[in-house]
Amino acid sequence: MSDALGADTTLADLPLREDLRGRSPYGAPQLDTSVRLNTNENPFPPPPELVADVTEAVREVAADLHRYPDRDAVALRADLAAYLTEATGVRLATDNVWAANGSNEVLQQILQAFGGPGRTALGFEPSYSMHPILSAGTRTDWVPAPRREDFSLDGAAAARVVAEKRPDVVFVTSPNNPTGQSVGIEDLRAVLDAAPGVVVVDEAYAEFSAQPSAVELIEQYPAKVIVSRTMSKAFAFAGGRLGYLAAAPAIIEALLLVRLPYHLSAPTQAAARAALRHAEATLGSVHQLAEERDRVSAALRELGFDPVPSDANFVLFGRFADAHRAWQRYLDADVLIRDVGIPGHLRVTIGTPVENDAFLAASKAVSEEIQR
Amino acid sequence: MSDALGADTTLADLPLREDLRGRSPYGAPQLDTSVRLNTNENPFPPPPELVADVTEAVREVAADLHRYPDRDAVALRADLAAYLTEATGVRLATDNVWAANGSNEVLQQILQAFGGPGRTALGFEPSYSMHPILSAGTRTDWVPAPRREDFSLDGAAAARVVAEKRPDVVFVTSPNNPTGQSVGIEDLRAVLDAAPGVVVVDEAYAEFSAQPSAVELIEQYPAKVIVSRTMSKAFAFAGGRLGYLAAAPAIIEALLLVRLPYHLSAPTQAAARAALRHAEATLGSVHQLAEERDRVSAALRELGFDPVPSDANFVLFGRFADAHRAWQRYLDADVLIRDVGIPGHLRVTIGTPVENDAFLAASKAVSEEIQR
Repeated sequence: MSDALGADTTLADLPLREDLRGRSPYGAPQLDTSVRLNTNENPFPPPPELVADVTEAVREVAADLHRYPDRDAVALRADLAAYLTEATGVRLATDNVWAANGSNEVLQQILQAFGGPGRTALGFEPSYSMHPILSAGTRTDWVPAPRREDFSLDGAAAARVVAEKRPDVVFVTSPNNPTGQSVGIEDLRAVLDAAPGVVVVDEAYAEFSAQPSAVELIEQYPAKVIVSRTMSKAFAFAGGRLGYLAAAPAIIEALLLVRLPYHLSAPTQAAARAALRHAEATLGSVHQLAEERDRVSAALRELGFDPVPSDANFVLFGRFADAHRAWQRYLDADVLIRDVGIPGHLRVTIGTPVENDAFLAASKAVSEEIQR
Repeated sequence: MSDALGADTTLADLPLREDLRGRSPYGAPQLDTSVRLNTNENPFPPPPELVADVTEAVREVAADLHRYPDRDAVALRADLAAYLTEATGVRLATDNVWAANGSNEVLQQILQAFGGPGRTALGFEPSYSMHPILSAGTRTDWVPAPRREDFSLDGAAAARVVAEKRPDVVFVTSPNNPTGQSVGIEDLRAVLDAAPGVVVVDEAYAEFSAQPSAVELIEQYPAKVIVSRTMSKAFAFAGGRLGYLAAAPAIIEALLLVRLPYHLSAPTQAAARAALRHAEATLGSVHQLAEERDRVSAALRELGFDPVPSDANFVLFGRFADAHRAWQRYLDADVLIRDVGIPGHLRVTIGTPVENDAFLAASKAVSEEIQR
């Protein structure tokens, strides 16, 4: 029994919305294990120069903390536009970029503007589980659509289901989380041609992929395509919570109508700008993680597992007769991975070489014991 | 013409929700004037010890930026509970407190859990203009209710309208923004007794008021009362974006169902905790601002204006034949105040003594010219 005030009152006593009753909060268990490979974090800590630069940037803004931050985060958006331009070869302006507290907030704002009650959002499952959760949170009806048996996206089939269901918002995750495959530009074009509303290409893991970014489609589909990104993964900035998107300026004007004023704190804006100045160093880890990913996939295959080809910093693998039991075996070996709810499969985030070796050692034991 | 990609596309070309068409983004003009008294910021910069402590706190978490922050912000919530306990004399536990990126996000989460489509929120106007905006953003129908002619809240009349309209969420702002008066505990009790749903007591400016906080009502109304607060004003932490609330633990369990996972960044959590350690120093300015407020009110009255009695760090005053024209006259005198849309009135934030003198000098000129 908690000693908190009003602790006798339970959720059942509250005038909660009916559609929330019986739900559980989203989130992977935050467990204290030696090897944490469950939330697709970048395992490499920020370099000391970045830590120093972030600290100095926050010191500068801290003297003005009594003032509200720049409501439109213009300087940060200019830096993000410059980074994306460099990374993709597609010239983007400040007006093409919007930022928020993590890509979750970016996606929520998109749903508030283009989804909502009486509207629908469609995604190809299994994919990022926050897409349906954010849809529910904005009362947007969720329309699940299938992938191929091997979890890849069939562009023609995707276009057909979009043409048939006519969703207001389509989510295409590329590389897809939790399965790992990228979606090619021609497949995206097929979906865009069929879509009556907006198409959100969720590129949270784009830096780990060799596939071109969907930002090149903004010119052809300015009223439809939105490319969302995050600094959490490749930039090793998960703790800084900075998600962003690239789109035509009118899309961003639309998001201004639903964003909370002053949503991005001055320290967040300053820290993200400092981290972006170290893009080269941070992104250096991306190449190493891609190599480790391929090593882990090959080793899993050798152990008799069935890893799904991945362009991201994680690998989905099977087959387990009982995935949850296997997840617990890994945890018993002090290795925390993720049961993403796909029957027979688990997802492992690529860690440091030492962490990956620990994961592979645990995998060997698990494979001998319970793999079928 | 912007050189951004897709700049030819306009808002009218987008599949925007119909209910957003024709709207303008919320927000006071961010203009470059010498004297900025328009957004109820605390005019005193953080003391150097606070800046140093915030900086050091961010340095410590910056080394772990590759990891997600504590999703439930437990340490920060414990510190906020300790502060509120000290400030109000009501013993609150960590489980009684929730925090988010500004009180706007706190209020949005409350509406997502207890409002939303098919539900209603009621507020006593004029009040904080974000309440109806956040209601619209969560598709909660807004029910405006009146105040007395002098802008104070009539508890008995408020209870009657709540009993009649049966809103799912009631907002009571105390002290009220933009008018300044607090609401007494007995008036709050009357509203709570009548309310079928939750009652949000928005205490953003509570530290400036001598009235007791509504947190003392949590024990009696655990399933109904939610007290929202912010570090923006009294804590001089507007740039840090930290809003919070006190309520029964079950209310916070409900908010966990709608909050975005990892909504509060590691730097935000660390910076807010550092700022809280300097509560005594920061809150020292509150007393001075309250004295300045009374001085400004008296001077305005002497100039022939009609200031509304205020328990906050701002003063609403009239009467102007044309408030917007008067606002422009202040701006011409390099003093930025706020036209909050109340006919005949403007709102001035209490600044430093020097800023207040500049405002009063401008007021003298304005009064001679256009006051009726």
